[in-house]
Amino acid sequence: MKTVLIYSGGLDSTVLLYHLLDAGHEPHALSIDYGQRHRCELAAAARICEASGVSHTKADLSAIRALLAGSSLTSPEIEVAEGHYTEETMKSTVVPNRNMIFLSLATGHALSIGAGQVAYAAHSGDHAIYPDCRNEFADAMATAMALADWKQVELSRPFVDWTKADIVRRGAELGVPFAETWSCYKGDKLHCGRCGTCIERREAFDLARVDDPTIYADDAPTVDQLRPNNWRL
Amino acid sequence: MKTVLIYSGGLDSTVLLYHLLDAGHEPHALSIDYGQRHRCELAAAARICEASGVSHTKADLSAIRALLAGSSLTSPEIEVAEGHYTEETMKSTVVPNRNMIFLSLATGHALSIGAGQVAYAAHSGDHAIYPDCRNEFADAMATAMALADWKQVELSRPFVDWTKADIVRRGAELGVPFAETWSCYKGDKLHCGRCGTCIERREAFDLARVDDPTIYADDAPTVDQLRPNNWRL
Repeated sequence: MKTVLIYSGGLDSTVLLYHLLDAGHEPHALSIDYGQRHRCELAAAARICEASGVSHTKADLSAIRALLAGSSLTSPEIEVAEGHYTEETMKSTVVPNRNMIFLSLATGHALSIGAGQVAYAAHSGDHAIYPDCRNEFADAMATAMALADWKQVELSRPFVDWTKADIVRRGAELGVPFAETWSCYKGDKLHCGRCGTCIERREAFDLARVDDPTIYADDAPTVDQLRPNNWRL
Repeated sequence: MKTVLIYSGGLDSTVLLYHLLDAGHEPHALSIDYGQRHRCELAAAARICEASGVSHTKADLSAIRALLAGSSLTSPEIEVAEGHYTEETMKSTVVPNRNMIFLSLATGHALSIGAGQVAYAAHSGDHAIYPDCRNEFADAMATAMALADWKQVELSRPFVDWTKADIVRRGAELGVPFAETWSCYKGDKLHCGRCGTCIERREAFDLARVDDPTIYADDAPTVDQLRPNNWRL
């Protein structure tokens, strides 16, 4: 089925891209520039789509930033916190209502290009911090998406009950080029290894027993140092 | 209550602005530039907000147009059809998923500025053409909006069962400056009086028995000529 994939160039949505290809769907990747500081993920998205022959649309909606103040991902004056995702400080990375905004744009794009499905890579590890990764939220959006137009658009979220380690395992099966994907919220040259998404990425490879090809910054903690009892920055 | 109002500068949302003020709410008007050809509505929105002392945010998201091809409102090469809204040709004015996109942006903005409510002026006259003006759609969105964040945002749609004539009557009670509002989809200097939204506007004043202060183009049909049995362009 023709499917609009909300595609960041990160690990989760890249595995979903390959997962859709493997299932015989025809993904159209949609990347949104919302003024994120880790905009290098968009370059990763473009490279991976080109290498895998998938059509890729990038929309520059960086003006959205003016509406969604208060997140460290879009406000240069707020620092990206370091430490595990479970920590209170990581809440600063929440971009207000990002998933609903992306799903609504992807649904409009699907209607425009005649795609019957929108897919996004929300997964269970996101729930503690991100309310809009919960299955209840996805269900409500699926209902709204089916009513938004006379043509129905389905919402596919195959990873919604998976952990990030499950996603890494699936990616390894599918031969996903993990080294090409980008996660780090800081958006420097290398993955910092210290922000929530770097730590989550590294732990997922460790839990999945899959070799992690990511090059982390020199001062990044080791996997052993990341274990909750050992955590010190 | 602090309320983000999706505000086009048109008749319906201007009456809603005054309706919210009358009910003691604190509206924050949000206008979206989505590359619409009748962009002059945004200037109307700014003028009306300034005159009524309401805070107004305009977001330039005209890059959205690249994602939502196929509507005469955003594609210069597709002409705006003339005639009643009930005609098949008016479907060309549907911008794919516009209301879901606007509601999701308004919800993000509400979370960002600490508003507990989002309001939009969908009304029953829109339903035949616009699926995303139906109450079922609004209900599904209200559910999704309540789940999108730990803080809940309510969806207010007081006109969803009203006709446009009901809205005009309410606007007359509230002293809405109708002449300042903009409806015409063609976006020329005067209201054309021939496109679906001009005809609907004019008929609503006629049905409401409220004086219509709009200045229509010289070649616009008269109200009598607009009655369905007399309709000729």
